[in-house]
Amino acid sequence: MCELLGMSANTPTDLCFSFTGLTQRGGNTGPHSDGWGVTFFEGKGIRSFHDSAASSASEIANFVQKLPIKSQTAICHIRQANVGNICLANTHPFVRELWGQNWVFAHNGQVENFSAQQGMYEAIGETDSESIFCDLMNQLRDALPRDANAQQLSHALTAHAQTYAQQGVFNCLLSNGDWLFTFCSTKLACITRRAPFGAAQLKDADVTVDFAGETTPNDVVSIIATEPLTTDEAWHIYQPGEWKLWQLGEVIADGIVIL
Amino acid sequence: MCELLGMSANTPTDLCFSFTGLTQRGGNTGPHSDGWGVTFFEGKGIRSFHDSAASSASEIANFVQKLPIKSQTAICHIRQANVGNICLANTHPFVRELWGQNWVFAHNGQVENFSAQQGMYEAIGETDSESIFCDLMNQLRDALPRDANAQQLSHALTAHAQTYAQQGVFNCLLSNGDWLFTFCSTKLACITRRAPFGAAQLKDADVTVDFAGETTPNDVVSIIATEPLTTDEAWHIYQPGEWKLWQLGEVIADGIVIL
Repeated sequence: MCELLGMSANTPTDLCFSFTGLTQRGGNTGPHSDGWGVTFFEGKGIRSFHDSAASSASEIANFVQKLPIKSQTAICHIRQANVGNICLANTHPFVRELWGQNWVFAHNGQVENFSAQQGMYEAIGETDSESIFCDLMNQLRDALPRDANAQQLSHALTAHAQTYAQQGVFNCLLSNGDWLFTFCSTKLACITRRAPFGAAQLKDADVTVDFAGETTPNDVVSIIATEPLTTDEAWHIYQPGEWKLWQLGEVIADGIVIL
Repeated sequence: MCELLGMSANTPTDLCFSFTGLTQRGGNTGPHSDGWGVTFFEGKGIRSFHDSAASSASEIANFVQKLPIKSQTAICHIRQANVGNICLANTHPFVRELWGQNWVFAHNGQVENFSAQQGMYEAIGETDSESIFCDLMNQLRDALPRDANAQQLSHALTAHAQTYAQQGVFNCLLSNGDWLFTFCSTKLACITRRAPFGAAQLKDADVTVDFAGETTPNDVVSIIATEPLTTDEAWHIYQPGEWKLWQLGEVIADGIVIL
């Protein structure tokens, strides 16, 4: 299995604290040592880092931990391989262009023997995750208008996510930089930080941060992760089938589908 | 204008020496200070670094210079903006998936008022370069078979490159990781290094390397760049209209088209 980390914020925010916690789980406090990747949106552009080395030992992960990249939306993944070799082509997040936007996807779980419908988007690597992503993109391209609103988007995304989750385990993060869709099949948690900001202690590393010193009173920053990353905050634990569509750090649509 | 750097090799090779020379031209020995990017192929996967900061001052470029990423094909670009703001979305190389492969493109020059035909691939940023790339990808997808051989590929690529070059300045590098297509509209140079290997001195930095200590006798490594990167080697200077298709460090097809 793997671990997911996503961020949605109303102001460009760095992911250093959460990323530091997550990467420990890649070979140190967790077994997810088969590569890792992170994609930060900056406007319509993206900045991705991928590595097939364990994140806890990766020179690039160590560099990115200290790099204060400011982003409003980011998606991160550490991998414990089940389908597909350990190589860069099998490392999440995966990216495709749709309607002049970068669409970025990461998956936790496994959908065995998944068979994608033929379409424009094709997997480059061997993972079930990338096949599902391409299948989803092909279907969205056919079904959605270019200017889909939150309701149309939620309707399409949850219907497809439900179908995938009924065939296996499908926790996912998907974003086009404008919104972040999160779906829980078995395991996902989230927290929204806003004023008054306090301190937090990472679960996986001896690191504490006082958000009050790093934010302004208007900041809203939400973190979504497979498991809570801090020990002293109240995370919301998603139920199986629960989904949330985030924008600028806030939930703009949510619900629960039957799995 | 911008500067290009490409590599084709028959064994995984690091680009540190050439990258160090090129990045000096991004704000230090050259004026190309509006961002930079590099994409390394590793098997079917890619590893990209992009930054909108000047490469000579970029913390990420400094890190990548020292990172011995081994690749058989790489494409690098430093930007001096003419069309489009300085931002990540306008930073080369650009990437699209076609037939389950990463296709990577960088452009030097300007094709004013370029109007792309509508198609599946759309530009994310505002540059003429990305519009041309998407136009090219749309046309290749329609015209080429999935298993196009070198002759079919060369025929299609040179025909389109000729058309673009007749509308402006179009020096480019394009690769799917298997081959590297290089086209000269106004300015491009190349060198192939093979045994017996010697030493070389960068033009843009006080750095010398002795390739004999870093290679095996069977290695073949070709570097393609806007201008020669070393002072003491015999680079081949492309003529306007000249193109070369590289694979494993060797030219597998070449020619000259009339501009």
